[in-house]
Amino acid sequence: MSKKHIGKQSVALPNPPSIAGHACIVGKKEGEGPLRDSFDLINEDSFFGEQTWEKAESAMQKMTLSMALDKASLPPSAVEYVFAGDLLNQCIGSSFGLRDMDIPFWGLYGACSTMGESLSLAAMAIDGGFADTAAAITSSHFCSAERQFRYPLEYGGQRPPTAQWTVTGSGAVVLTADGEGPYITHLTCGKIVDQGIKDANNMGAAMAPAAYSTLRAHFEDLAIAPSHYDLIVTGDLGAIGAGILVDFFRNDGIDIAPNYDDCGLMIFSRDAQDVHAGGSGCGCSAAVLTGHLLNGIRTGRWQKILFAATGALLSPVSTQQGETIPSICYAVSISNTR
Amino acid sequence: MSKKHIGKQSVALPNPPSIAGHACIVGKKEGEGPLRDSFDLINEDSFFGEQTWEKAESAMQKMTLSMALDKASLPPSAVEYVFAGDLLNQCIGSSFGLRDMDIPFWGLYGACSTMGESLSLAAMAIDGGFADTAAAITSSHFCSAERQFRYPLEYGGQRPPTAQWTVTGSGAVVLTADGEGPYITHLTCGKIVDQGIKDANNMGAAMAPAAYSTLRAHFEDLAIAPSHYDLIVTGDLGAIGAGILVDFFRNDGIDIAPNYDDCGLMIFSRDAQDVHAGGSGCGCSAAVLTGHLLNGIRTGRWQKILFAATGALLSPVSTQQGETIPSICYAVSISNTR
Repeated sequence: MSKKHIGKQSVALPNPPSIAGHACIVGKKEGEGPLRDSFDLINEDSFFGEQTWEKAESAMQKMTLSMALDKASLPPSAVEYVFAGDLLNQCIGSSFGLRDMDIPFWGLYGACSTMGESLSLAAMAIDGGFADTAAAITSSHFCSAERQFRYPLEYGGQRPPTAQWTVTGSGAVVLTADGEGPYITHLTCGKIVDQGIKDANNMGAAMAPAAYSTLRAHFEDLAIAPSHYDLIVTGDLGAIGAGILVDFFRNDGIDIAPNYDDCGLMIFSRDAQDVHAGGSGCGCSAAVLTGHLLNGIRTGRWQKILFAATGALLSPVSTQQGETIPSICYAVSISNTR
Repeated sequence: MSKKHIGKQSVALPNPPSIAGHACIVGKKEGEGPLRDSFDLINEDSFFGEQTWEKAESAMQKMTLSMALDKASLPPSAVEYVFAGDLLNQCIGSSFGLRDMDIPFWGLYGACSTMGESLSLAAMAIDGGFADTAAAITSSHFCSAERQFRYPLEYGGQRPPTAQWTVTGSGAVVLTADGEGPYITHLTCGKIVDQGIKDANNMGAAMAPAAYSTLRAHFEDLAIAPSHYDLIVTGDLGAIGAGILVDFFRNDGIDIAPNYDDCGLMIFSRDAQDVHAGGSGCGCSAAVLTGHLLNGIRTGRWQKILFAATGALLSPVSTQQGETIPSICYAVSISNTR
C-alpha cells in the first residue's frame, strides 16, 4: 500500500486542497424549500432561457462553474482540470455545458454521487501534484431526468410514496493547492454494492447499503467514530434510505443519528412540497454542499463534515431487463483545519 | 503550475506506472479481422452466454478484467481502484460488469476515448501516491450500441459510407507502481472541441479536431516532434477522420503520416469486412491497445508509442435537438523505458 492510502479504501491527503470558490444554482421549487437562503441563484425559468430541458441543464452547469470561478476570483484559463458528469444519457449536461470553457476535461459517470466523485478526483489531482487548480461540477434537472428515466411529464404518471424528486440544480467547487480553506483532508472511494433491490422507485433503499459500506470503511480506515464529525451527510437517500442507514449502524451498536442528515431530506420540505421520500439527483447533494454545507463550514457552524454522495448506477434498460440496482457512495472529509 | 504539469495541458509522471497486465476480448467479426492473432479471446457468441446484449457487454467486461488480473498474477483484492466506463446509457456495461469485483470504483464517461481517460487517471492515481495497483477498463458491443444510438438491428437501416462499425470488444490494463514496464510516462488531458459537425454518421470528422487539439498540445508541451514516437495511434477516427487529422498537421508543415495509424483502420479490413469508414466504439481503441499495441511494445517492435483515444460526446437526444458534436481526445505516452 502506498503511503497516502490508509486502511482498506481511504486516502489521507498530505497537502489538503483548499476550496477557493463554490456556487450553486437551483430551480424554482428548490428555491421555495427550507434552504432557499443558501443558493447563489434561484432561476424561475425551468428552461434557463433555452429551447429544451437538456439545453437548460447545460446552461445551468455553465453558469454555475462561471459563478464558482468568479467567487474564487479565477479565470477559466487558471483551471487545469474540470471533473464533471451528470445523469443524462452520455452525460450531455456536462459535455455541452462545458464545451466552450476551454478547460481540460475529465468526464465522469457516478449518477447522483457525482459531486462526491468529482470532488475526490479533483482533490487527488491537486494533492498528487498534477494541478494547482481544479474544478468539480455536476447537475440534474427534474424535467430532463423525468422524461429520460421515467415518463414524459405530460403523461402525469403517479409516483409511489418511496419515490424521490429529482432536484433541478447544479453545484460547482473550485479547488486550489494553496488557500485558506475549507480543506479536503480525507477521501473514501466506494465499491459498487448491490443488495438486490429492484424497485427503481425506491432508490433510497438501493443506495443505503452503498452508503453504509463506504461510511463503515471510512470510520474503520481512519480509526474514528462518527462523532469525529460535526455533521455526516449522505447524498440523496431520502426518508427511506436514511432510515435504513441509521438502522444498519444501529445493528453495529453505533448511533449515527445525532449528527447525521441527508441532502435529500434537507433540500425540500416533505410536508409542504409533495416530494414523497425527498430530493434526489446529482444536483441535490451538489447544491446542498455548495450552498448550505460549505456556507456553514465557512461561518463556523461546523468545523468538520463528512460529505457522502450516493448514486444508483441503474438505467431504464437495466430495470426493464429485470436487473437489480448497483449503487455507490464516495465520502469526502471537509474541514476548516488542514 | 505544479511541477508535474508541463506546458499547457500535459503531465510528466516522475514515477511512471508499469503495465503489469493487459487483456482483450472481442467478438466474432473482430476475430476475422487483420489483428485476429493479437486478441486474448475471440468469442463466437455475441450474447457471451447472457440473455441480452447489454448483459453480454457486462459479462465481457468482467471476463476481460479477470483475464488482465490473471496475466498480472494479481487477485482483484490487490487492486485499489478500477477506472471504468462505456457507451451505454448510465454506463451499465461497467457498473453491472464490475459490481461483483469488490474493487473501489471510479465511473467515467469519455465515450470512445474511455481507454485513454481511464488509463490516464489510473496512472495519475499511482504516480500521485494514492494507489500501488489500479486498473483501467472499457468496452463496447456492436448490438447494444447499434440499438441505443441508431436503429434496432432488425430494422436493417442503411449506413452511409462515412459511418463506422462499433467494435464488440473490451480491453483492460492493470498498472502497478513498481514493475518492469512498459511504462506510462506522459499524459495530455484533452479539452472539449466542437467544430460544428452535426452528422452523427460522420463521427470521424467530428473527432478529428479534438485529436488535433490534444496531439498539438502534447507535442508543444513536451517540445517534441511527432517523430519522437515510433507510432502515434488515434482511437477511432476511421478513414475520414484520420485523413482530416493528417491534413490539419500538413497545414502546419508537419507530416505525421509516416508513423501515424488509427485503431479504427487497424482492427477491420475495410476491403473485406464491409465496415465503411472503419471501426469505432470504446472497445475499438481498447482492444487494439491491449492486444496489438502493447504486444508490439513488449516484443520491441516499438519502443515508444503515443496512444490518443478519441471520443464523440454526443447523444441521440442532442442530435435530435439539432446540436453539433463535441469531442475529446486523451493522449498517453507508453514506453519501454521510464
